[in-house]
Amino acid sequence: MSTSNASPNPPIPVYSNLLPPSWKTKISEWLKEDCPSFDWGGFVVAETPKRATLFCKSEGILAGVPFFNEVFTQLDCKVEWNYTEGQFLTSPPGSGAGKLKIPVATVTGPSRKILLGERVALNTLARCSGIATASHVFLKTARQAGYKGIVAGTRKTTPGFRDVEKYGMLVGGVDPHRYDLSSMVMLKDNHIWSTGSVTNAVHAARSVCGFSLRIDVEVQTYEEAVEAIKAGADVVMLDNMDGETLISNAIRLKKEFGGQQGYKFLLESSGGIDVANVKQGGHVDNSIDIISTSSIHQSTKHVDFSLKIDPSS
Amino acid sequence: MSTSNASPNPPIPVYSNLLPPSWKTKISEWLKEDCPSFDWGGFVVAETPKRATLFCKSEGILAGVPFFNEVFTQLDCKVEWNYTEGQFLTSPPGSGAGKLKIPVATVTGPSRKILLGERVALNTLARCSGIATASHVFLKTARQAGYKGIVAGTRKTTPGFRDVEKYGMLVGGVDPHRYDLSSMVMLKDNHIWSTGSVTNAVHAARSVCGFSLRIDVEVQTYEEAVEAIKAGADVVMLDNMDGETLISNAIRLKKEFGGQQGYKFLLESSGGIDVANVKQGGHVDNSIDIISTSSIHQSTKHVDFSLKIDPSS
Amino acid sequence: MSTSNASPNPPIPVYSNLLPPSWKTKISEWLKEDCPSFDWGGFVVAETPKRATLFCKSEGILAGVPFFNEVFTQLDCKVEWNYTEGQFLTSPPGSGAGKLKIPVATVTGPSRKILLGERVALNTLARCSGIATASHVFLKTARQAGYKGIVAGTRKTTPGFRDVEKYGMLVGGVDPHRYDLSSMVMLKDNHIWSTGSVTNAVHAARSVCGFSLRIDVEVQTYEEAVEAIKAGADVVMLDNMDGETLISNAIRLKKEFGGQQGYKFLLESSGGIDVANVKQGGHVDNSIDIISTSSIHQSTKHVDFSLKIDPSS
Amino acid sequence: MSTSNASPNPPIPVYSNLLPPSWKTKISEWLKEDCPSFDWGGFVVAETPKRATLFCKSEGILAGVPFFNEVFTQLDCKVEWNYTEGQFLTSPPGSGAGKLKIPVATVTGPSRKILLGERVALNTLARCSGIATASHVFLKTARQAGYKGIVAGTRKTTPGFRDVEKYGMLVGGVDPHRYDLSSMVMLKDNHIWSTGSVTNAVHAARSVCGFSLRIDVEVQTYEEAVEAIKAGADVVMLDNMDGETLISNAIRLKKEFGGQQGYKFLLESSGGIDVANVKQGGHVDNSIDIISTSSIHQSTKHVDFSLKIDPSS
Amino acid sequence: MSTSNASPNPPIPVYSNLLPPSWKTKISEWLKEDCPSFDWGGFVVAETPKRATLFCKSEGILAGVPFFNEVFTQLDCKVEWNYTEGQFLTSPPGSGAGKLKIPVATVTGPSRKILLGERVALNTLARCSGIATASHVFLKTARQAGYKGIVAGTRKTTPGFRDVEKYGMLVGGVDPHRYDLSSMVMLKDNHIWSTGSVTNAVHAARSVCGFSLRIDVEVQTYEEAVEAIKAGADVVMLDNMDGETLISNAIRLKKEFGGQQGYKFLLESSGGIDVANVKQGGHVDNSIDIISTSSIHQSTKHVDFSLKIDPSS
Amino acid sequence: MSTSNASPNPPIPVYSNLLPPSWKTKISEWLKEDCPSFDWGGFVVAETPKRATLFCKSEGILAGVPFFNEVFTQLDCKVEWNYTEGQFLTSPPGSGAGKLKIPVATVTGPSRKILLGERVALNTLARCSGIATASHVFLKTARQAGYKGIVAGTRKTTPGFRDVEKYGMLVGGVDPHRYDLSSMVMLKDNHIWSTGSVTNAVHAARSVCGFSLRIDVEVQTYEEAVEAIKAGADVVMLDNMDGETLISNAIRLKKEFGGQQGYKFLLESSGGIDVANVKQGGHVDNSIDIISTSSIHQSTKHVDFSLKIDPSS
Repeated sequence: MSTSNASPNPPIPVYSNLLPPSWKTKISEWLKEDCPSFDWGGFVVAETPKRATLFCKSEGILAGVPFFNEVFTQLDCKVEWNYTEGQFLTSPPGSGAGKLKIPVATVTGPSRKILLGERVALNTLARCSGIATASHVFLKTARQAGYKGIVAGTRKTTPGFRDVEKYGMLVGGVDPHRYDLSSMVMLKDNHIWSTGSVTNAVHAARSVCGFSLRIDVEVQTYEEAVEAIKAGADVVMLDNMDGETLISNAIRLKKEFGGQQGYKFLLESSGGIDVANVKQGGHVDNSIDIISTSSIHQSTKHVDFSLKIDPSS
Repeated sequence: MSTSNASPNPPIPVYSNLLPPSWKTKISEWLKEDCPSFDWGGFVVAETPKRATLFCKSEGILAGVPFFNEVFTQLDCKVEWNYTEGQFLTSPPGSGAGKLKIPVATVTGPSRKILLGERVALNTLARCSGIATASHVFLKTARQAGYKGIVAGTRKTTPGFRDVEKYGMLVGGVDPHRYDLSSMVMLKDNHIWSTGSVTNAVHAARSVCGFSLRIDVEVQTYEEAVEAIKAGADVVMLDNMDGETLISNAIRLKKEFGGQQGYKFLLESSGGIDVANVKQGGHVDNSIDIISTSSIHQSTKHVDFSLKIDPSS
Repeated sequence: MSTSNASPNPPIPVYSNLLPPSWKTKISEWLKEDCPSFDWGGFVVAETPKRATLFCKSEGILAGVPFFNEVFTQLDCKVEWNYTEGQFLTSPPGSGAGKLKIPVATVTGPSRKILLGERVALNTLARCSGIATASHVFLKTARQAGYKGIVAGTRKTTPGFRDVEKYGMLVGGVDPHRYDLSSMVMLKDNHIWSTGSVTNAVHAARSVCGFSLRIDVEVQTYEEAVEAIKAGADVVMLDNMDGETLISNAIRLKKEFGGQQGYKFLLESSGGIDVANVKQGGHVDNSIDIISTSSIHQSTKHVDFSLKIDPSS
Repeated sequence: MSTSNASPNPPIPVYSNLLPPSWKTKISEWLKEDCPSFDWGGFVVAETPKRATLFCKSEGILAGVPFFNEVFTQLDCKVEWNYTEGQFLTSPPGSGAGKLKIPVATVTGPSRKILLGERVALNTLARCSGIATASHVFLKTARQAGYKGIVAGTRKTTPGFRDVEKYGMLVGGVDPHRYDLSSMVMLKDNHIWSTGSVTNAVHAARSVCGFSLRIDVEVQTYEEAVEAIKAGADVVMLDNMDGETLISNAIRLKKEFGGQQGYKFLLESSGGIDVANVKQGGHVDNSIDIISTSSIHQSTKHVDFSLKIDPSS
Repeated sequence: MSTSNASPNPPIPVYSNLLPPSWKTKISEWLKEDCPSFDWGGFVVAETPKRATLFCKSEGILAGVPFFNEVFTQLDCKVEWNYTEGQFLTSPPGSGAGKLKIPVATVTGPSRKILLGERVALNTLARCSGIATASHVFLKTARQAGYKGIVAGTRKTTPGFRDVEKYGMLVGGVDPHRYDLSSMVMLKDNHIWSTGSVTNAVHAARSVCGFSLRIDVEVQTYEEAVEAIKAGADVVMLDNMDGETLISNAIRLKKEFGGQQGYKFLLESSGGIDVANVKQGGHVDNSIDIISTSSIHQSTKHVDFSLKIDPSS
Repeated sequence: MSTSNASPNPPIPVYSNLLPPSWKTKISEWLKEDCPSFDWGGFVVAETPKRATLFCKSEGILAGVPFFNEVFTQLDCKVEWNYTEGQFLTSPPGSGAGKLKIPVATVTGPSRKILLGERVALNTLARCSGIATASHVFLKTARQAGYKGIVAGTRKTTPGFRDVEKYGMLVGGVDPHRYDLSSMVMLKDNHIWSTGSVTNAVHAARSVCGFSLRIDVEVQTYEEAVEAIKAGADVVMLDNMDGETLISNAIRLKKEFGGQQGYKFLLESSGGIDVANVKQGGHVDNSIDIISTSSIHQSTKHVDFSLKIDPSS
C-alpha cells in the first residue's frame, strides 16, 4: 500500500465519480429547509431568464462542485465553470492588492430559481472549500516538515453533512479516514475492558466484521501495541503518548514486527496535532504511517463565495 | 419593540421549549449517517450498563443541551447535567493553569448505546456551543463599544443543520434573523430590477405575504431608503455604504421619518462587520437598529467536549 | 403598508412562482395514496396516447393550476390551459340555462397515466378553486359593504393540505394570514397567563423571534390593547367584543396611538364573521385593518370539475 | 351479503381497530406542517402542566377520536373523553336556546404541547365529524324514504387525508366504497374502448387482479349491463340514466339475472344524488343495491370544536 | 368470473402497466442500500461510455423487466431487450450441451453507473424470474394433472419486496392472491372465536369493508362452510382437510349451494400443496376453484443472470 | 487475523448488538406494506389480550430474533423465547417420526396486533433462519472436507432486505463479506481496463478510500495476482480458474509472497462452489483463505414457522 497522499503523474481525479444518486435527496432536503412553504421573494422576481456569476472573494481551494451543480440542476438552472475542482483560487501574480473577486462560474436560469438555490449552494461550497483548503495547507506543511506518511481526517464532522466534509478532505488531498461506525472497526479502551483483553476485542470484532474490513486498535502502551499486532490489528493507534515516547515506540514496533511474516500493520497517531505544531517537526516521524487530525475540518475557515445576478443579462 | 438583545431581570429562558417534535427525526437521520448498517464495535462492547462523563475541555458557552439529550433518549440512555444551557464553562478562579476538564454531564446506559450516540452528540454540542460562544463574545464586545441595538445572525448556516445553529445564536444572546425564505421577506437588487422600483417590489411582496410578515429591503442609496420606507418596508438594510455614509444616512433617516405617522421602520447594517472591527467603534451607531453578521456562526471555533466511560461504573 | 387587498394596475400575478420544488414530493405522496400497489385499471387501458378535456361544471374561480400540472408532469402527461389561474369560470352571457360545461384544459398522454392522475388532480383543483371562490365572494361582499381593509384566512386548514388551501386564498384575492406556528407569533390568553402580563408575553416572544417576525396579540379589553401596543405588538386582535364595542375600541385606539412615534400597529377582528353578516355592514369598519375568517376556506363548496378522455383522440 | 348499512343488535363498533401503526407517521407530518422550525409561542408559555377542555360548539356526530388522541400522544399529553366515537353531540332536551358548548373531552399535559397539538387535532376532528354527520343525515333520510340498500361514498376525498375521510364515513354509518385504485377494480368507458368490449375489459382486469378483488363495471345501456353481468362483473353501475330508466333497468336486470346460477351481482347508482333529492323518493329504489355519492364527504360542513386551557388548572 | 388462469387469444399482456410511479422510490432506496456513502469503485472506472450485455445463464422465464429498466433509468443508462417479459429463456434446440449463456439485453451508459446499478438490477431480475418460473411450472403441472381452476400465491413474501414477487407470479401466469391486509378480507379461526360465530365474523367484516371487497372465510368443517356461504362469504377456504374429505366436501357444497339464488362462492384449498404432489393428481379437483400455495414464490430457485461490460465498446 | 470462522470457547455472541436504531424504520415500512390503509380483520378480532405460540415446523437454525421482536414491539406486544438465536431447532432424540412442531416463543398482546405483525414477523424469521441454516450446513461440510479457512457470502441479496440476510449469515457462522459498495473496494476487470493496469487501479482506489478500507482485486492469471499483491491489494480473488490451476496458483503465491516484508494478502476463491461440490474436496484447499459463495443465501430454503393464537388464552 502506498503510504503517501500524493502519487507521481496521476490522471486528474474526478471526485464527483464518488457520489451515488442517493446523496441527491439530501440536497432536496436542504432546499426544503431553506423554503418550507412559500417563496415570497420568488413571486416578486418571477421567472425571467438571467445569468449570475459565482465570485470567489477569499483565497482557497475550490471544492464541492458536484453539490453546487446538483442544487441548480434540481432548480432547472445550468452551471458553467471557469475553474476545476481542486484548483487553488487566488489572484494572478501582479494583480495588486485589491479585494479578491474571481469569477469562478456562471449560473443561468429563471431568476427566482437562481435565488432559491443561492444560499444552499453557497453555504455548501464555502464550507467544502474551507475544509479542502485547510486539508491542503496541513498536508503541505507536513510535507515541508519532511513527513511522507498519510494525513487523515476524523469522524468529528457536522451531523448530516459528513459527505460534503469528507469530500472536501479528499479534494484537499488528505485521507478521509473511516466514514462511519459501519466501515473500519475502531477498538478503544471501552472495547478492551468489555472483552478483557486487546486480543479478545480484536477476535470479537473479526468474528463479525469478517475479512473485508480493517480493524484499528487504540493502545496506551508498547505492550498493548504488541498484543494488538499479534492479534491481527491492521492499524495500531498510539494514544496519549508524548512526542518522544510516541516516536520511540513507533520505531521499535516497526523494527521488531514490521518485516515478519503475518505482521503487517500501520501505525497511527492522533490528538493535539495541528498545522501550528506540525511545523515544528517534533510531532511527525516517518515511522508513523498516519497522522489523523480534526483540525483540517472542524472549526475551519470557509472560503468566501457570492453569487451576483447580472441585471442586464 | 425592544431594540436590545438584553432585558432587565428576565426569567431564565428555556430554549428547548422552542423545539417541536419534528426536529427529532433529524437526529434519527444523523444517527443513521454514523451507522448505516452494522455496528461492529457495538457487538464488541455489548450492553453492560455504564456511566460516562461529558467533559468540557475548552472555554465557552454550553449550548445544544436538548439535542444532546435527544440523541441519548433515542438510544435508551439518560443524561444528567451539572451545568445549564447558556452557562459559560470555564475554570473556577484560582484553579491554576492546567488543561481545562470540566465534568459537565453524566450519561448512563448500555455501553454500546453510549458509544453509538457519542460522536453525533459531541459533534452537535461542540458546534452549537461554538456558535453560542462567538455570538456571546460579539454581543459583549458591541455592548462595550456602546452599541445598544440588536446583533443578529444570517442564513449562512450549514445545510441541514440550521436549527442547531440558529439555536446556538439564541443561547448566545443574539437575534437569529430570518429563519428561511418562507419567513421575513427580503428584497434585494434583483427583486427591485424585476419589478421596476423599490415601491413595486414592496407592493408585490405584500400582495402575497400579507400583513403577517415583515419586509426587509436592501438599499444602496439614501433615496432608495426613503422610497422603501414610504412603500411600507418594515426594515431597511443599508448596503454597500462605507462607515461614515452609513451612519450619516441612518441618522438622517431616523430624523426625517422616525417619528412621523405611518413610518415605522428599523435600520439594518450588514457585511464586513466582525468582532475585531466592532471593537474600534466606528462601525456601530445606535441609529442602526440591527447589525447582522455571519461571523458569529460561520467558521466559528467549536467548544471542545469529550465523553469518557468510567470503566469501573 | 398597503391596507387593501387590491392595488391599481398590478401586473398579472403568477402565483406558481410561490412554490418551491419541495412541494412536489407531496404530490408524489398523494399519487401513492391513490395507488399503493398495483393499478389494475391501468393494465386494462394500457398506454395508448389520448387527449382528455378538463371540464368545469359549476361556476367559480379557477385555482390550483400548478398542482394540477405537477400531477400530470409526474405522470409524463402534458396540460394545456384555455383559462388562466384566477379567472372566474362561468357561462358566457346569453348562453342559455343549460348545465355548465366549460372546456378548461386539455391533458394529453398515455391513457393509463391520465387515469392514474385524474382523481388526485381533480380533487386538488376542486378544493383549491372552491376556496378561491369563497375568498373572492367574501372580499367582494366586504368591498360592497364599504370595507377597504384586509380580509384574511386562518390556520383552520386541512392537515397536510395547507399549501393548497393557502394558495387558494391568495388566488381568491385575500391574505393567507400566518402560515404556521413558526411564522408570525400569536399570543393569546394562555401566553399572557403564563408570563403574568401582556407586556411580559410580548417581551418573551421578541427575545426569541427577534426583529424579523411580527407579533400579534389577542386582547379582551381596551386596556389590554393599549398594553399590547405599548409593548411593541405589531398586530392587536380584538377578541370577544360585540360589534359596537369592537368598533368604538378600534376607533379610539387608532385615534390615541395611531399617529404617535413608535406606535405602529394593525387592528384585527376575528370570529363569527361570514359572508352573510358582512353584508349587513355593522360588522366591518375601516378602523379595523384586518378581518380574519375561516369561513372562506373551511366547509366551503368545491368547484365541480371532470376529466373526459376523447375516445377518438 | 347484507345489503343494509345497519344490522340488528351489533356490538358497539370500535373503529380505531381499523388503524394500523403506519397512519401515525401522517400525524407527525401534520404536526411538522404546522411548526416546521421554531415554536415561538411555545417558548412563551413553557411547560407548566395544564388541563384543557375540548368543547363542541355545533351539533353533529363525534368522529376522529383516534386521530385526536394520537396527536396528543405524540406530544406527551393525555386525553379523556366524556363521549364516544359515533355519538350525536347536541344539547340535552330542555337546555334552552343558548349557544351549544358541550365539554367533550379533557386534554392534560405541558401547556406548550397542548398548544402545539391544538390546531392539528381540531382541524382533523372538525372535518372527520363533519363527514360522519353528513353521512349519517344522508343515510337517515334515505331510510326514511324507504331505501334499504347501501349508501356509499366515493374517492373524491382530500389528497393525503383520505384515511380520515373514509373513517368519518364509517362512523357516520355508510359504506366507504373502494379505498383506492389498488382495491376494487372499476371499469369505465375508457377501459371498454381500449379493449373493444365490456367482456374483454372484464377479462383483462380479472387476468391480473385475480379472484380476490371485485370488479365494478360502469355501463350506459341495458345491453351493456347484461354483457357485464355475463362477463362476471361483481357490481354493475348504471350510469347516466334518468330516474325512470334507471329504475326500470334495475328491476329488469334483477328479474332476468338475479336468481340464475353464476349470476350474482350488485347494482350501483351514482351521480347527482344528494340529501335534498333523496328525500323526494323517486331517486331511490330497492332494486338498486348501492347509492354512491360524494355529497356526504365533499364540501360538507365541519363540526365546530374548540380547545380551551383552564388557566387555574 | 373466469375460473381459469389462461384465456384464448388474449392480447400480449404488458404487466408494466400495473406499476404506478410510487414504486420507483423503492428502487432508489435499494440503490442507496448498496451504496450509502461513497462509491470507491466508481471513482476508479469513471464515466467512459460503455455497453454491457445481460446474459441469462440458467433456464427460466424472464420477469422483472420494468424493475431492471428503472434501476438503469435512475442511473442515466439505457436498456434494450432481445427478449420480452414472460418468455421462457432456454437454449435453442440443437445448440448442444454447453453452459447456457443467452444475451438477453444490452445496457449502455457511463461505466461507473452500469456498475452502480448492476447488483440491484440483477438481484431483482433473478428473484422475480425465479418466481415466475416456479409459478409457470406449477401451473403447467396442474394443468397436466387436469386441473382447470385458479392457481394462486400467498402473502408469504419477502418484506419490502412484495411488489416484485407478486409481479413475478403474474408473469408466471398465476393469480397473485390478496395483496395485503387492506385488500380482500380473510377471516380465520381467531376472527370467528372473537365474534362468536362464522356469521358474526362475516357480518362484522362486511360492516366496515363494505360492498367493494371480497371476504374469504377459512373453515374447518362442512357445517362451517355452509354457514360461511349463507353469511355471504365470497370465498370459502377448506382448511385442514385431508384430500378425500376436502374433495367430497367441495363437491357437496357446489351441488347444494352452487346454483341457488344468492349463493355464489368460490372454494379454495391451501396448505401442503407443491409441484411434486400436484403431479400425483389426488390433490386437485375441479370442484376446488382455487389452489393457493407459497411453494411458487417462497424458497424458489432464482434464474441466474450476469452483466458483462464489453471492454472494447 | 484469524483465518477461521470458528474460535475456541468464545462468549455466546449477541448479534442483536450489531443493530443500530436506524433499522427499526425498515420494519415500520414492512408493516405498512402489509397494511397500507385499513385493517379489516383487525376490526373483527378487536383488542382482546391473547397469547400466541410461535411453532417451528421444519428443522433449522433459529435466526432473526431481534427483527421478530421489533415487529411486535412496534405493535405493543411482548415476545418470550424458549430458544436462543443460533440454536439448531430439531426434534429431541427419540421423539418419533411425527411432523416437527417446536414451541419456540410466545407472543402476548392485543389479538388484532398479533395478527397485524404475524406475516411480517414470520416472513422475516423464515428467510433469516433459512440463510443461517444453509450457511451453517455449508460451513460444516467445508470443515468436514478439511477446510480451515473462511466461508463468506456475497452481495447477491434481496434488495431492501440485505441487513436481515447478512445477519442470517453471521448467525449461521459465516463471514458476511463486504456489506456494500461503500465498504471494501472490489476491483474487477472493468476497473483494470479503465485505468490501464492492476497497479493503476489499486492506486486509484487507495487514493480515495484511504488507509481505512481493504481492497480486493479480482485477477485472471498468476501474473495479475502478483501485480495486485505488489500494488498493495489486501485480498486477491482468483477468478475463472479451474480447480487445479486455482490451487497451484494459490500455493505458489503464498510461497513466494506470503512471508516477505510488506506483502500481506488473503486469497479468495469464488464462483460455482456449493455444498454439493465442496463435499468432494477438490475445490477447497487451505492455501485459499476465503471461499465466497452466494449458495448460502440466494435461493435457500426457508425454515417453516407458524404463529397460533391460543383461543383460551
